[in-house]
Amino acid sequence: MIKDNMNNNIRRLAVLGSTGSIGQQTLEVVRALPYRFHVVGLAAGKNIALLSKQINEFKPSLVYYQDKETRTQLANGDYELLPLEDIVSHPQVDTVIIATSGKSGLSPTLAAVKAGKTVALANKESLVMAGEIITRETKRNKARILPIDSEHSAIWQCLQGETQKAAQLILTASGGPFFSYSPAQLEGVTATQALKHPSWQMGKKVTIDSATLMNKGLEVIEAHWLFNMPFDNIRVLIHPQSIVHSMVEFMDGSIKAQLSYPDMRLPIQYALSYPERLPNPQLPRLNWSTINKLTFEPPDFDTFPCLKLAIETGKKGGTYPAVLCAADEVAVDLFLSQRIKFTDIAHLVEEALEQHQSIAHPSLEEIVAADTWARQKTKELVGASTC
Amino acid sequence: MIKDNMNNNIRRLAVLGSTGSIGQQTLEVVRALPYRFHVVGLAAGKNIALLSKQINEFKPSLVYYQDKETRTQLANGDYELLPLEDIVSHPQVDTVIIATSGKSGLSPTLAAVKAGKTVALANKESLVMAGEIITRETKRNKARILPIDSEHSAIWQCLQGETQKAAQLILTASGGPFFSYSPAQLEGVTATQALKHPSWQMGKKVTIDSATLMNKGLEVIEAHWLFNMPFDNIRVLIHPQSIVHSMVEFMDGSIKAQLSYPDMRLPIQYALSYPERLPNPQLPRLNWSTINKLTFEPPDFDTFPCLKLAIETGKKGGTYPAVLCAADEVAVDLFLSQRIKFTDIAHLVEEALEQHQSIAHPSLEEIVAADTWARQKTKELVGASTC
Repeated sequence: MIKDNMNNNIRRLAVLGSTGSIGQQTLEVVRALPYRFHVVGLAAGKNIALLSKQINEFKPSLVYYQDKETRTQLANGDYELLPLEDIVSHPQVDTVIIATSGKSGLSPTLAAVKAGKTVALANKESLVMAGEIITRETKRNKARILPIDSEHSAIWQCLQGETQKAAQLILTASGGPFFSYSPAQLEGVTATQALKHPSWQMGKKVTIDSATLMNKGLEVIEAHWLFNMPFDNIRVLIHPQSIVHSMVEFMDGSIKAQLSYPDMRLPIQYALSYPERLPNPQLPRLNWSTINKLTFEPPDFDTFPCLKLAIETGKKGGTYPAVLCAADEVAVDLFLSQRIKFTDIAHLVEEALEQHQSIAHPSLEEIVAADTWARQKTKELVGASTC
Repeated sequence: MIKDNMNNNIRRLAVLGSTGSIGQQTLEVVRALPYRFHVVGLAAGKNIALLSKQINEFKPSLVYYQDKETRTQLANGDYELLPLEDIVSHPQVDTVIIATSGKSGLSPTLAAVKAGKTVALANKESLVMAGEIITRETKRNKARILPIDSEHSAIWQCLQGETQKAAQLILTASGGPFFSYSPAQLEGVTATQALKHPSWQMGKKVTIDSATLMNKGLEVIEAHWLFNMPFDNIRVLIHPQSIVHSMVEFMDGSIKAQLSYPDMRLPIQYALSYPERLPNPQLPRLNWSTINKLTFEPPDFDTFPCLKLAIETGKKGGTYPAVLCAADEVAVDLFLSQRIKFTDIAHLVEEALEQHQSIAHPSLEEIVAADTWARQKTKELVGASTC
């Protein structure tokens, strides 16, 4: 970290997935607080037009772009074009924001923690697939993982200043667009319906995962690794208003909760400014005259089998969670392209898990191999039964 | 603090007001966690039978009993009979629990902070009447004041680990038994009705204060002193379920809340075990299957004028808050003995405040004189108008 002439800490950021939903919101936070953050690196996958705009605005010295064919368009800028792993471990970078979705976050997350960086992590798959390796390497290299997901940020905020381990983590879930649907009603839902999330604006994959509650299951696994908490001490509560982002119960029975409107810029900013909080007029303050009721109820595990499936897979460990992620990613794609029904997502993932031979304490290569196997297997299963 | 042979910290407590509601609950906490707390001193006002039982059970070495005529019954025990000020400043005591109600808490609170003790404070009047003196002496003598009120404990818990000043404190109020009553309905309510608090079991004075919302106003003043927070950054929200005990809003808009069933043993225990939390099977854990709705709404300042009156009095400062407390104590007594109506409480207190000549930055003597003046004045006002 460097200091400006007011002696403020300036964080030097590399934003991976800068053109995605979380990436763009990260840059909004930087734009609102330019005196505290300096964008050193930008990396994106497919949207070269937006990346070019971001390069013009933030003038990073390190750039990565995934698509090889169009990458040449970026060749003549005032920056180095580098592989992801080189950006996240670059000496100019102190904080890496992993805002990519899917398994593409795994390798740079691992490279960043191996380089001892602070990693602000929005990517779920990294910890779900390779939680054991990543937490071990984080410790070994004195790196830090700071959560950006609203639920984990809430838990992390509630844990501040507590000197002992929590008794229970309570993750809240909006319940998604199909909250209170019957299994029969769920059979017929379309991708368009599933993409209409009641409270959060997010990418397509995570929006479908929210509708199946797979997303919440992945978050339970992530919470297990982030907070070193046994699965039996993590529970999920449906809270449709999405105001309480999660809670922590302590050993004396006291509970702390974190509340705000559903706006990802808050957890992003908290991870970047931690342990400080910074005033940002763009972040909305809760208006209590419009929020007069907060409700909570247990999830319906039978109607939304992905939640239980994910938690059980997390408990089993090994390469199972990698299969869970990969099979789910394929199944969600198939649902979005209308090749399978909404309720088939859970069936497909379950079937892939059943056919998998897990490896205990897997290496990164074994995790990647399980991912590849599961993608192939899930497609095969659909080829055999649906298409 | 001393250590036991397991190297645990053992807090040596003096409990003032041990036979009252908070005092008894403090001793329940000690009874549940005998390996962490040692009762060195007990002090009570009028219930000699219960005090004698407590002496037999906890075997304190220091005892105070207010009533002179029956005090001789305690003369032959294995303890010293001492004045309150000597108990709270005694070298054997490290933590003083001020669980007395009314202005009788003021003098021992001041003596305890002057002796550099940790003061677990349940008495509202101390800080309301003499906040300026007490906070100054606390700082000067490196003493600590830890709140026991559930609202202030909630705020204090939410502030743990935060490195900066909060943006806003949000005190919750149950609304009392007359929540949503019209002014006309309030005219006719009886003491019996007012003593039926919907969620808390408390002493009579504080129960009536809860019904008028005077209690919440006193808590706002207390919060101002405890957390060094301007009055304009403290607000009150009605929350009839009494599960969220208060909240803190930070400068980034994030809010933390503390939740539990309404049970004073939790904030008492937290103040005594701070910064640790101790498992206590007697403290109930929230059962989320029974709590499915939490509601919040702004208070009705017109129907419950004591709230606004108290906050405005807090802002004015000087000897006004002492008059507020004294006039309210007299008015509540008059209501309980059916000499005035419920709605007269606010009128009487307001009238006493209007007739008062406040002294800025008063000495303790000036505060005590204002208290005496206000008691006399309030009685006079009733003599003139009601009786």
